[in-house]
Amino acid sequence: MGEGVLSAGLARVDGVLACEGVPLDAIAAVAGTPAYVYSGGAIREAYERLSRALAPVRHRVHYSVKANSSLAVLRLLRALGAGVDIVSGGELFRARRAGFEGKDIVFSGVGKTEGELREALAAGILLVNVESESELRLLDRVAGSLGAVAPVALRVNPEVRVDTHHYIRTGERGNKFGIPYEEALATARLALGMAHVRLAGLDMHIGSQLSHLDPYREGVMRLLELHATLKEEGAADLRYCDIGGGLAVTYDTEIPMDAQAFADAVLPLVAASGLQLIVEPGRFLVGNAGVLVARVLYRKRSGGRDYVIIDAGMNDLLRPSHYNAFHLVEAVRPRGGRLTADVVGPVCESGDFVALDRDIERVEEGDLLAIRSAGAYGYVMSSNYNSRPRAAEVMVEGERFAIVTARERYEDLVRLEPDAPAWRSA
Amino acid sequence: MGEGVLSAGLARVDGVLACEGVPLDAIAAVAGTPAYVYSGGAIREAYERLSRALAPVRHRVHYSVKANSSLAVLRLLRALGAGVDIVSGGELFRARRAGFEGKDIVFSGVGKTEGELREALAAGILLVNVESESELRLLDRVAGSLGAVAPVALRVNPEVRVDTHHYIRTGERGNKFGIPYEEALATARLALGMAHVRLAGLDMHIGSQLSHLDPYREGVMRLLELHATLKEEGAADLRYCDIGGGLAVTYDTEIPMDAQAFADAVLPLVAASGLQLIVEPGRFLVGNAGVLVARVLYRKRSGGRDYVIIDAGMNDLLRPSHYNAFHLVEAVRPRGGRLTADVVGPVCESGDFVALDRDIERVEEGDLLAIRSAGAYGYVMSSNYNSRPRAAEVMVEGERFAIVTARERYEDLVRLEPDAPAWRSA
Repeated sequence: MGEGVLSAGLARVDGVLACEGVPLDAIAAVAGTPAYVYSGGAIREAYERLSRALAPVRHRVHYSVKANSSLAVLRLLRALGAGVDIVSGGELFRARRAGFEGKDIVFSGVGKTEGELREALAAGILLVNVESESELRLLDRVAGSLGAVAPVALRVNPEVRVDTHHYIRTGERGNKFGIPYEEALATARLALGMAHVRLAGLDMHIGSQLSHLDPYREGVMRLLELHATLKEEGAADLRYCDIGGGLAVTYDTEIPMDAQAFADAVLPLVAASGLQLIVEPGRFLVGNAGVLVARVLYRKRSGGRDYVIIDAGMNDLLRPSHYNAFHLVEAVRPRGGRLTADVVGPVCESGDFVALDRDIERVEEGDLLAIRSAGAYGYVMSSNYNSRPRAAEVMVEGERFAIVTARERYEDLVRLEPDAPAWRSA
Repeated sequence: MGEGVLSAGLARVDGVLACEGVPLDAIAAVAGTPAYVYSGGAIREAYERLSRALAPVRHRVHYSVKANSSLAVLRLLRALGAGVDIVSGGELFRARRAGFEGKDIVFSGVGKTEGELREALAAGILLVNVESESELRLLDRVAGSLGAVAPVALRVNPEVRVDTHHYIRTGERGNKFGIPYEEALATARLALGMAHVRLAGLDMHIGSQLSHLDPYREGVMRLLELHATLKEEGAADLRYCDIGGGLAVTYDTEIPMDAQAFADAVLPLVAASGLQLIVEPGRFLVGNAGVLVARVLYRKRSGGRDYVIIDAGMNDLLRPSHYNAFHLVEAVRPRGGRLTADVVGPVCESGDFVALDRDIERVEEGDLLAIRSAGAYGYVMSSNYNSRPRAAEVMVEGERFAIVTARERYEDLVRLEPDAPAWRSA
């Protein structure tokens, strides 16, 4: 199963790595390198696999925009019937630009500003996932000033232990996310008493890249206990049980989340509650559907190590350096033979690497490499570090492809810096 | 000394933190938050301190643009007489936009593309710091095609041990930077025999944030040994000894590099060689001269910990999360009292933090915080992660300030994504 998921959209045609029906070297010839390439078919396939598994209960799939916020990806998922989960005003802007309406959008995040809450309410958002009592009070005030009633889900920290990188654990006791479980009932009662808030759901998000079912099951049970108590107390508007995202994909040896097993574990619990299920998958839908295509600039040997220096840097793909993440590296057009090398970028840091001491197909200067499973947390984390223009993004559908994000040019780098800044006195 | 350097440009005026003569809350009122604020005076002071220390020998200070590539910072350093050290075509573009001429520019980096080399030669660059034999051969070819002769310094890996974060060590044996010491002589001879290359210097860069003198002294001695051999062999055009940058600044308890002690250690060696000294300081000139000003969005208590949630995230300042870097956090307008808290951003990752379990001045929602020593590797590493528009950059000179980089707007986020991408067949 791992390999099947990992290869989503990618295959070798006459030895050349292709995304669906388009060889990656044909894309590089048009789009240049580095370039992110996404398989529309692979995204569709992942979406449909999840939808089928959840079909037995009323549910909503809200794609987590932060994983890959390309308008082309958003438009594709909208056409499939997805909603979105956003975490900022910028993501709200993107979602609306891609055609999502307010009723398709839920808004998560620990640091929503007053301005962002105002924008979300003005857009007629489905749910604000509220993460603290302070935020709830601010939201009530903002909604009041707009003459509106804000639909709210309380994001509860279910305080379950999960096994993933500590930077992407979010549902354990003592972190910045959600309302502590022991305060959730009091906060819910507070919400029920507010004039400009309607308590419409309960929400959790326990982490990212999770492959075990127990934390989901435990978390849902804790949410449903809370729901039962609130229902007894007369909370009439509770409709949604939002269990977040976090479903694992395969980078290397990780066990991807099996959508059917996930559904089997969670659906019976939710069905019994009468609540509508919301899931917020991000990486699960797009992670394996993308590759980063880069060109080999130089080969070099130093201190007993081989180096393959490519034209994609940590500014393009931060995950290896930041999370010590593993990405499979393959030659687009293998020459035969293998090589053990550090695959590194051009950025002036030893931390700028894609793979260290890795056995890869032999490559020479000018060859193309594909860095696999780069569809999630790739381009969205990219920067202009070292004044490097950001890469292009390309979508593939069958035999066709389109540049959906243009490569930055040098002029773009300085566009916000006036030649003659306006000086003012304190 | 630490505190003196650390406070460069910052002081309290009637209890309010000010950059030179401008209170930070006055800047926030105009520029919004988060905002990077730089003290022109502090940059000038650091530059002059270094220049004075190096005055006894002929030298050139080439500011390392990657630390902070703001056009305003570049223009300020140009006015002071600095040259620049660039690592990409984008930095070349920036340097020229800021008024630097080719003869003010040296070009470093392990992954220079053919296009970048062409741009650099066309600009009449002072030196290309060549990092591999492959690059040397490419440069000779590119220069030949332009009918030019490329001025080259060989970047030699002096293979000295340094004591800094492993991501920013660059001069030890077995890393991607420079030409291995044992191959340097052969590569130099190769350069001397090339038609379109002129061997004009020797170069090293041993790491970043270094506070000890021994690695510099050892490295310079190794460069000079090489120089002596080449001179004997008749290398006539060798003029420059480029010893890179890496001078430490203070974030917390680090011992900053003392410019005078640095000069005392290095100058006598270089003076005896007859070579002109080049230094490439980045962080040393700008690191302590900047602060990131952020606003407190929420306070929250969960699982026995206090959280201060601010409107600057890891997309704005990556260093705490990426390098586990320490930045001092201060209230702009202290209320009295103290607090032990996690100071975290709004980005949806547990890894989005500025300070963990830190004793800070008590702050409430709406208060401003200053994150100190954010002048280097701050804004330049920022991204649009979570679709967050990038911050503003502000320069202060005495009683005046100017927004030198405008805050991004939502429209900027999608500017490279066409509404109707052009599809083409493979």
